[in-house]
Amino acid sequence: MREFDVVAFDADDTLWHSEDGFRAAEERFVRLLSPFAPDGIDVAEALTAMERANLAVYGYGVKAFGLSMIEAAIAIGQERVPSSVFAEIVDVTRDLLLAPVRLLSDVAQVLERVSGRYKLVLITKGDLIHQTRKVRTSGLDHHFHHVEIVLEKDRETYRRVLDQLEIAPDRFLMIGNSIRSDIQPVLDEGGHAVHVPYPYLWELEKVDVLPIGPRFAELGSLKELPAWLGITAH
Amino acid sequence: MREFDVVAFDADDTLWHSEDGFRAAEERFVRLLSPFAPDGIDVAEALTAMERANLAVYGYGVKAFGLSMIEAAIAIGQERVPSSVFAEIVDVTRDLLLAPVRLLSDVAQVLERVSGRYKLVLITKGDLIHQTRKVRTSGLDHHFHHVEIVLEKDRETYRRVLDQLEIAPDRFLMIGNSIRSDIQPVLDEGGHAVHVPYPYLWELEKVDVLPIGPRFAELGSLKELPAWLGITAH
Repeated sequence: MREFDVVAFDADDTLWHSEDGFRAAEERFVRLLSPFAPDGIDVAEALTAMERANLAVYGYGVKAFGLSMIEAAIAIGQERVPSSVFAEIVDVTRDLLLAPVRLLSDVAQVLERVSGRYKLVLITKGDLIHQTRKVRTSGLDHHFHHVEIVLEKDRETYRRVLDQLEIAPDRFLMIGNSIRSDIQPVLDEGGHAVHVPYPYLWELEKVDVLPIGPRFAELGSLKELPAWLGITAH
Repeated sequence: MREFDVVAFDADDTLWHSEDGFRAAEERFVRLLSPFAPDGIDVAEALTAMERANLAVYGYGVKAFGLSMIEAAIAIGQERVPSSVFAEIVDVTRDLLLAPVRLLSDVAQVLERVSGRYKLVLITKGDLIHQTRKVRTSGLDHHFHHVEIVLEKDRETYRRVLDQLEIAPDRFLMIGNSIRSDIQPVLDEGGHAVHVPYPYLWELEKVDVLPIGPRFAELGSLKELPAWLGITAH
């Protein structure tokens, strides 16, 4: 069996669906705003540009996305957007915040098996209240020794979490769907990382290169994790 | 000198001004919406009611406040509110998020003296990105051994933080302006608490009773803290 003191998981798009919900919300936004957009304006691109511009002020998560939708509607619609459209944008935002957690396939069984052998930690970014709600209502909470909701998943954050939990980097494994947030900074800090891609990746998480090296692996699905770790079947 | 292993501080309205900024924002909102409010509607009360109704979904902080202002504007204005008013609400929200930190009197000197004798921790609730920005730009960051940004300041949260930092409750002192968030749950967990009131208190933080007992004290200002702790002048 591979030796780690802690196996850490990303949450959104690693344990449960998230990005598909944002895509559906974005499509609702495009349908709502298209009647008000001047010719030649790509509504979806304008929204992504607004999210990118707002990231440093609003951070990650659904409330940030909601405010960016409001601002994009104002910018795109130029005074023509009525109050009822803003009301629908609020509904889109609330629907995302209150949507039930939809677990990815095999997640519960995988965590059950892996938590029998390793100490598990959850590391996620986004809204404090939304991420907490999802963790608590996922039914997976009890598998995790520690849950960390962070502002940004960069080298500094991983260093702080490893220090705080007193984990040596080479005894730490992170599993997630984003090379930018879950994989590269962990490898850069001397940790191990397993990439499990999700069908959709948010524009602002995209990177050009895939890491290579002995401390990195890519799996097709989370179902392959127990075997990769060397946990034998019951 | 009084014996504590950790002295913890609340941030908003304990180290720096916050609620006065929300009050000014609320006044801007009232001026913006009053022309659209039907007779007999109290705009400020409607906004507070919306914040209260949204607390469980949006949580604390400026982004939650911004979304509540948008929703209150929709509810109050009933289709009459133009896009330009929503644009101004977004400006109010951004101004709050980007406002420079304004320290309360004597805070820097008090932290300098107290941090020479005790390990200091900061415990605050609100937006991850906004609270992090304020801590980093306050110039006070270096005084704190640990910064904890939490969803809710209740008994469960304090128990988790004390466990995580391995502090015995009776060796823990919390200092803050809110009886509901900084004082009562800490006393209930067996800790010590010092209340330093701020001129304004958010409606949703108000409680009816003031705690009494040997582990509670109230000071007129943070300036009195070093003497209360028994730190003698240099």
